[in-house]
Amino acid sequence: MHNYEVKRLLVNYKTLEEFKNFREYGSAELSMKDDLEANMIENDSESPFYGIYFGNKLVARMSLYRIAGKFDRYFNPPQDYLELWKLEVLEPYRKKGYGETLVNFAKSFGLPIKTNARQGSSDFWNHMSFEAATYDASRDRGESPFVWYPAGVKEQQTDQELINVESSEEIN
Amino acid sequence: MHNYEVKRLLVNYKTLEEFKNFREYGSAELSMKDDLEANMIENDSESPFYGIYFGNKLVARMSLYRIAGKFDRYFNPPQDYLELWKLEVLEPYRKKGYGETLVNFAKSFGLPIKTNARQGSSDFWNHMSFEAATYDASRDRGESPFVWYPAGVKEQQTDQELINVESSEEIN
Repeated sequence: MHNYEVKRLLVNYKTLEEFKNFREYGSAELSMKDDLEANMIENDSESPFYGIYFGNKLVARMSLYRIAGKFDRYFNPPQDYLELWKLEVLEPYRKKGYGETLVNFAKSFGLPIKTNARQGSSDFWNHMSFEAATYDASRDRGESPFVWYPAGVKEQQTDQELINVESSEEIN
Repeated sequence: MHNYEVKRLLVNYKTLEEFKNFREYGSAELSMKDDLEANMIENDSESPFYGIYFGNKLVARMSLYRIAGKFDRYFNPPQDYLELWKLEVLEPYRKKGYGETLVNFAKSFGLPIKTNARQGSSDFWNHMSFEAATYDASRDRGESPFVWYPAGVKEQQTDQELINVESSEEIN
């Protein structure tokens, strides 16, 4: 059992500098930096990121976003769920339970969780009791969705098949 | 100028075996294999993938999906557009124009294109006249969207701000 403390990350220059240590650094981080510099958001605003520090150093992080039930295409009954992404532990800190701690923290909200499994990560997600969702081309568009079902929640059947076909047709 | 031939890929055991050579192999490919094995789709059905062969070997591929205009949150005026993903060239065949050929093929449909740029690929996308879309947390959820605008098409303003806030709130 590990007892790492998970913190909600605040948007400030220190956090944004720490983010550069992570491989998955992209538009989300750059956008926060722009917003901070342009005073569009306040220093120390809450971000969608959660992380674990080793001393003063951010060594693991993930992003969580709550999606409203009316947009739920993964769970039955349809409900609010968490989208989890950018789960990453810095190289020298791997295999020490930081990733598990973050995922368990996400589960503690009691909501279903959906993530897009990176290439080669399915063993980790299975170990965390996630399952591969049945692939739906129009919904998943190349993602590898893995989901976690709290008690009483099941996979959503694709009874939306007709809507999908209408809404996203392949090129002919 | 390169003159590689781009082919629509058919779902059969040879194609599925070739897909294993690509790093981005996941639920989409496994799902096609399952459907083929379960006779849910016919041998040689069309796939959403396009590719380039070197002799008999598939050396580059991408996936294209046409998204209906009513779901368009990237372009102004809202319209049907192409989602491009899994653009990948096998390692020994890189820097020879295969990727450019595929992207130019995608542009030839005359529709706007949206892709999620992988870490470190922004130079390639800029070279292909794509631009980073203004990041919108509720729409992009950690992606790094890059878009290509055909003549007469502009970026969609996030006048949907109110809808977003209502539909996807962060955890508090």
